Amino acid sequence: MRRNDYYIPVSGEEKAADFGNTKDGGVSQYSKYDSIPLNSLKSDEAASGPKQGPTFQDGQRRVDYVLTYHVQKPQSVCRKTSRFADYHILRSLRRSLSMMRSGDTPPSKEDPEIAAHKHRLDYHEDDKRFRQTEFEDNLREMGLELEKDEGNKIPGIGFLKIHAPWNVLCREAEFMKLKLPTKKVCNVVERINLFIHKVTAPLHPKVEPNRPQNVKHLSHPFSREKQHLKFDLLKMTFTGITSLLGNGVYTAAYPLHDILYEEWASYSVFYKYQPIGLIRKYFGEKIGLYFAWLGVYTQMLIPAAIVGVIVFLYGCATVDNDIPSMEICDPRNNITMCPLCDRACSYWKLKTACGTARASHLFDNPATVFFSIFMALWATMFMEHWKRRQMRLNYIWDLTGFEEEEDHHRAEYEIQVMQKTLKKQDMYPKVGLFLSLMCFLLLSPLQIGVTFAVVFGVILYRISIKAALHMSSNPTARSNIRATVKGTAAVINLVIIIIMDEVYGAVARWLTVLEVPKTDKSFEERLIIKTFVLKFANAFSPIVYLAFFRGRMVGRPGDYVYVIGSYRMEECAHAGCLMELCIQLCITMLGKQLIQNNLFEIGIPKMLRARFILLPRRKSEMDSQQQEDYNMTLQRHEKDHFLGPFVGLSPEYMEMIIQFGMVTLFVASFPLAPLFALLNNIIEIRLDAKKFVTEVRRPIAARAKDIGIWYNLLRGLSKVAVIVNAFVISFTSDFIPRLVYQYMYSPDGSMHGFVNHTLSYFNVSDFKPGTAPLQPMHLGYEVQICRYKDYRETLWSNTPYDLSKEFWAILACRLAFVIVFQNVVMLMSDFVDWLIPDIPKDISLQIHKEKILMVELFMKEEEGKKLLRDNHTNQSPFQPRSRPASHTPSNC
Amino acid sequence: MRRNDYYIPVSGEEKAADFGNTKDGGVSQYSKYDSIPLNSLKSDEAASGPKQGPTFQDGQRRVDYVLTYHVQKPQSVCRKTSRFADYHILRSLRRSLSMMRSGDTPPSKEDPEIAAHKHRLDYHEDDKRFRQTEFEDNLREMGLELEKDEGNKIPGIGFLKIHAPWNVLCREAEFMKLKLPTKKVCNVVERINLFIHKVTAPLHPKVEPNRPQNVKHLSHPFSREKQHLKFDLLKMTFTGITSLLGNGVYTAAYPLHDILYEEWASYSVFYKYQPIGLIRKYFGEKIGLYFAWLGVYTQMLIPAAIVGVIVFLYGCATVDNDIPSMEICDPRNNITMCPLCDRACSYWKLKTACGTARASHLFDNPATVFFSIFMALWATMFMEHWKRRQMRLNYIWDLTGFEEEEDHHRAEYEIQVMQKTLKKQDMYPKVGLFLSLMCFLLLSPLQIGVTFAVVFGVILYRISIKAALHMSSNPTARSNIRATVKGTAAVINLVIIIIMDEVYGAVARWLTVLEVPKTDKSFEERLIIKTFVLKFANAFSPIVYLAFFRGRMVGRPGDYVYVIGSYRMEECAHAGCLMELCIQLCITMLGKQLIQNNLFEIGIPKMLRARFILLPRRKSEMDSQQQEDYNMTLQRHEKDHFLGPFVGLSPEYMEMIIQFGMVTLFVASFPLAPLFALLNNIIEIRLDAKKFVTEVRRPIAARAKDIGIWYNLLRGLSKVAVIVNAFVISFTSDFIPRLVYQYMYSPDGSMHGFVNHTLSYFNVSDFKPGTAPLQPMHLGYEVQICRYKDYRETLWSNTPYDLSKEFWAILACRLAFVIVFQNVVMLMSDFVDWLIPDIPKDISLQIHKEKILMVELFMKEEEGKKLLRDNHTNQSPFQPRSRPASHTPSNC
Repeated sequence: MRRNDYYIPVSGEEKAADFGNTKDGGVSQYSKYDSIPLNSLKSDEAASGPKQGPTFQDGQRRVDYVLTYHVQKPQSVCRKTSRFADYHILRSLRRSLSMMRSGDTPPSKEDPEIAAHKHRLDYHEDDKRFRQTEFEDNLREMGLELEKDEGNKIPGIGFLKIHAPWNVLCREAEFMKLKLPTKKVCNVVERINLFIHKVTAPLHPKVEPNRPQNVKHLSHPFSREKQHLKFDLLKMTFTGITSLLGNGVYTAAYPLHDILYEEWASYSVFYKYQPIGLIRKYFGEKIGLYFAWLGVYTQMLIPAAIVGVIVFLYGCATVDNDIPSMEICDPRNNITMCPLCDRACSYWKLKTACGTARASHLFDNPATVFFSIFMALWATMFMEHWKRRQMRLNYIWDLTGFEEEEDHHRAEYEIQVMQKTLKKQDMYPKVGLFLSLMCFLLLSPLQIGVTFAVVFGVILYRISIKAALHMSSNPTARSNIRATVKGTAAVINLVIIIIMDEVYGAVARWLTVLEVPKTDKSFEERLIIKTFVLKFANAFSPIVYLAFFRGRMVGRPGDYVYVIGSYRMEECAHAGCLMELCIQLCITMLGKQLIQNNLFEIGIPKMLRARFILLPRRKSEMDSQQQEDYNMTLQRHEKDHFLGPFVGLSPEYMEMIIQFGMVTLFVASFPLAPLFALLNNIIEIRLDAKKFVTEVRRPIAARAKDIGIWYNLLRGLSKVAVIVNAFVISFTSDFIPRLVYQYMYSPDGSMHGFVNHTLSYFNVSDFKPGTAPLQPMHLGYEVQICRYKDYRETLWSNTPYDLSKEFWAILACRLAFVIVFQNVVMLMSDFVDWLIPDIPKDISLQIHKEKILMVELFMKEEEGKKLLRDNHTNQSPFQPRSRPASHTPSNC
Repeated sequence: MRRNDYYIPVSGEEKAADFGNTKDGGVSQYSKYDSIPLNSLKSDEAASGPKQGPTFQDGQRRVDYVLTYHVQKPQSVCRKTSRFADYHILRSLRRSLSMMRSGDTPPSKEDPEIAAHKHRLDYHEDDKRFRQTEFEDNLREMGLELEKDEGNKIPGIGFLKIHAPWNVLCREAEFMKLKLPTKKVCNVVERINLFIHKVTAPLHPKVEPNRPQNVKHLSHPFSREKQHLKFDLLKMTFTGITSLLGNGVYTAAYPLHDILYEEWASYSVFYKYQPIGLIRKYFGEKIGLYFAWLGVYTQMLIPAAIVGVIVFLYGCATVDNDIPSMEICDPRNNITMCPLCDRACSYWKLKTACGTARASHLFDNPATVFFSIFMALWATMFMEHWKRRQMRLNYIWDLTGFEEEEDHHRAEYEIQVMQKTLKKQDMYPKVGLFLSLMCFLLLSPLQIGVTFAVVFGVILYRISIKAALHMSSNPTARSNIRATVKGTAAVINLVIIIIMDEVYGAVARWLTVLEVPKTDKSFEERLIIKTFVLKFANAFSPIVYLAFFRGRMVGRPGDYVYVIGSYRMEECAHAGCLMELCIQLCITMLGKQLIQNNLFEIGIPKMLRARFILLPRRKSEMDSQQQEDYNMTLQRHEKDHFLGPFVGLSPEYMEMIIQFGMVTLFVASFPLAPLFALLNNIIEIRLDAKKFVTEVRRPIAARAKDIGIWYNLLRGLSKVAVIVNAFVISFTSDFIPRLVYQYMYSPDGSMHGFVNHTLSYFNVSDFKPGTAPLQPMHLGYEVQICRYKDYRETLWSNTPYDLSKEFWAILACRLAFVIVFQNVVMLMSDFVDWLIPDIPKDISLQIHKEKILMVELFMKEEEGKKLLRDNHTNQSPFQPRSRPASHTPSNC
């Protein structure tokens, strides 16, 4: 860890907050910059000694950015057209800039000759070289320093290393009114915070700049609005690069990786806070916000996990006092149950379901209801907490005045427009959108169909295995029936889910590409929504099936419902489907996270990379020793070339959102979900950190004020979670039937007799021909009347086997519970939402104080200006009134 | 209507948008201001000729503001302390200003001598006079012109007329960087808009400035942030005045009324749009927003009213095809019903309920369900539409950058702090808040109790009258039983509601005063919330009782539920309670609006005013002729003195919110509610306009960006409306039982037999002793078995008179419907919310363009400044790089 390493701002970096990271107090570190004018910092770079990171050949100048291109012919560039070329590329850049601003001017309208030009050249090499030189000359003219590195170790690939000298950045900053810390320093000393900070000191990473919240530099008042000017330099460069990349002039463009942070991207520091300030400086606001969000989420999972474990332990502790499972396990209750399938199955004793009943109690007890409510409020608190954290980060990172800019057009979009429908440019995206919408509409039912087919396949597997095992007379096989079937089915399910996940990801991308969205932002949003819908349905359809459909429409003994031939609808174990739902959730969460994390995020990229590194050699005859030697000789920028490209944050967010869904949606059936999620996320943070630092090229820093569409998806999920949990409690668990029995039917107000109450009677003489069990004497005696779990009319009523009054009464109670639960929890959530202010009190106070300071600064500057003008012209129109202008600055 | 009248900005007025209102195009009117420097406008005022409005004695200077005070002794002011006094008041003003900024500095801390001073003087006249003179001197020093008018016609009252000369305002504006139109004029010519404008021309008021949307002046980029500086002049004045008023130095402070607008405050122009721009100029943004909101609400009520009428007409058209009411009316269905009360009542024929059943169908048919969903979406659309309208107004009125300022402390608060708890200043409001919360918590159940007591009283009245009429043998009286009882009960209810409304308003105010909130804003918000809760509960408790509780727990014949002695719980008429709910709603809406509008808003203030005008004369010997003569001699400012003070917008908003509740909450039971509301609002707009223009003193213009807490209340109501409507449809109406009958029990899938299905059987031998009817032979034959409306077990079941399976099945269906309805409608609302962008497309485009223009301006100014500086010092640190800076302005 190099403590004094100096980060040249690549983009999105600012010199305001968390600038240095010296060890002394929060204020003094800025003091040396306070009174020094900007341009005197020029020599700062030279003074900092030899660079340790990747540099130019001279070992002094740092590599800030790298472009790569194919090298095939010797350099024979027509430099005589340079002047014209310069003018040309300048115009093009300027056009892109104005396009970026107006947002809707098609590029070919203003410069038909350029468009024609572009259209005409069919990517032959001379032209590429010509355009490359144009671009490089332009970069040099802007003051950037370039160095070429062609075919050194990797044949066929040339590197263009770019260095932005400090004085160029200074000039740009000065010209673009970059924010710089002014003299006023607000130091809010909060003693309690200090104490907390001391206590939690070991949790803080060592690189964290000293409490950035407490040291905030007041920005120059005018620069706030002109914030967006700042990115013009790099935007201009990128605008050019995007089209050059699109045309194949360059093959890749990336800033270089810096060092890996010991204090962040390492599993050994899993218990520490993340150095968000540094992450943001290194990767930009967008990625900084992702890790901040991940941190908040993980932090919030801690209380949820604790409460979840307590709820689970409560279940464990009370399992011996649970009257229904005691009744089931009691051998004196010698209840004969009806066969669970026609012919093959036989009668069975209720007490064989004892284990399942006891296990179900762990997840199906009154504490679960409390936990669902808790988690609904938790989700709201989490959203609120994140809003506040985001606000705070916005303030610290000086994004309060920043507004998302109009995106520039995507290179693919421009190429599509130019290649295919030069005349119907405005038409094209609409046609694409229409096509894609049609595809999506067609695919959606198909997708749901596929998902349910998969689910159904697993069901069939489960049923057939179960039936086969039922029919086999091997007693050891039989005893393991349930466990074997459930386990293998869940694993199959998991594998299918993971495979389909990748398929759906590709489908979503293909659909979005079809649409040809105009800007990167709209491309990303559309892709996210499509991917989310498909992946979410994929991940949750088996769970939804288990929770709400399994064992619902099974019919009754002698009249079982059959689907497709002779396969019966599955029934749940005696004590509700909650147990199986729980197993499914457990396997899905653990398996998905383990496999996706390890295999897809680390394993496959590594494999691919290994292949690519070997590829240029064209033979794989190198042994590992040779390869290591070869790797050692590679320079930083050459190594980075082999790293995977940065594919955006969407997969990371998507994974987390699906996990959030698991944690909130079915929390009523699996109180340990938050714990699992917490354990996963502790690894996930460091894994992502490692990946970003070592596995992919350093992404271009992007500015962002919030996490965008993901917030809406989270919000939607936490709303859906309330209703889903209401249904899980009332329909999947036995909570409501128990309550109803206790207060409506129980003779003594206790749960005694509940099991008997839930079982209906069946007269074996009512078996339809061919449905009676083949082995009626299985239990050793002849059965006259057997029992089955349902609320149906008794044998001696007028309409036996019809749904009974109890069924309808309990259904009404279940539904009433859903209504009450949903509305109460929604009201409580709204209340929590209203109770917690969106902007933290100290931040809003700070903003208020800053405003006053700014007004003061402005007044002084105005008066100074007036004085200057007055001296200059000596024609003051009227005397400025002597105002009571002694605004004392607030004691911040 | 004086077309060329020139409004001096009192406060909250700007010179930017809709400045003049000449008849020619929208652009030219600004041309004369465009190139003239601000200070050359000085002579503009003199050139505009003699003023027509209220002026000073010279007939030239306009009266902008009036202060009144008591005159008792001849003026003997100690002017020798004037210098000290000036210093004194200046310090006080400055302190208020800084207090206003820091928000938490208690006044007595800085200036203990002033506090002690204030505390010491027990309002004796000399001191008042002294402070008055201080204040006036200060005003004169600020450049304002004053004129005194003591005891001219109204003895005992002196007027201090204040005139703000144009050059003072200019100087203030210059000093405070007031926004002024710059040269760039964006003229978006939208042809479609123009066409629409032509078509709707007669709907537009004649005074409306020509399409303010199309002419928008780009404000100076810097002034945007310093917006709030602008109010300093008047704020300073008011800060002084507030405490002076609190101390009784002045008795009233108000700006003068201007002319009344023929094009707005008149019933004859009810069909026209409101001249919102002018309203805002005259009354300020806050009142402007109220009328804009009222306009949007009224406009949105038009489609709702139309659909409501169609739904009602559909009910009328299908009443003859309604099988259940046909069955009830069919004389062949000779069904004998059980007596509705014990002993006094006798058996009756179902066909006597024919009329009610047919009437109920008007409001209880499938179209009502559609209408509920429609109205839920309508509410969402309304909220969205208003958001967009507000955004547009914010843009047009240049409020986009405006931020609500910290309020200054209330005079009452300061006095309380000073008088009572000089030491425990910080404690006091908390104690007050605690006291008030306790009171509120104690009062809330009390209030609910009172409301239900009132409801119960009405019920008792109704029951006793009914029972009395039942017992009487007069056949004509009997036939009118229902109508008479319902009508009188509803009227009694209405009267009680109106009386309690006033009581609750006073209670809410008293509670809020107890709290002593720090600022005006928090006072207002707390008052609004309390008033809303109390008034809302008051207005809706009888309706809620009718919709959800009446006829629910009535028991069954022979086992009726009794409350307090011998009064039975009321039952609904045969075909549901919907009809009665409807009558109650109708009477409440019409009556409340008519009575409150006419009596409270117009009648009582007028009466009070008449009394006050006569009061100064001390005798009421004048006849009306004399009074008119007297009135004629009064000057504008003297007349305005007799007008009521402006009491804020809360009562107006409150009335509308309650109405909005009526329209949305129980729309399922009364589809004509939107029509009634529309008719009322058309009158309401003009009534409020008249009131604001002629009945109350011209309020001080206040700035506001939105309608504040009212928006949240509206949003909350529209959410509650969904669930309330779901319950009304499923529980109050017969919609679900009909559906269930049709699809579960009907032998032929039609509604035939529905009435029979809803009636249970009762064996008259099961009457408990003393409950059998006194006149068993009333119908002319002996009754063995009678019927009653309920789902209970039949006589021949094991458990007769228990709730039957049908009851539970229908209950389950009702609850399922609530869940489905609520979630579907909420989802649709969210979808509509998401679909409609919050900021209109054209406005966001305009803002974007403006931003570019501003950047351009800024760049130029910066370059100019740099040039100036370079010329001045000739020490350019480094050469500014020649940027491609030819940003052509977008063609707006």
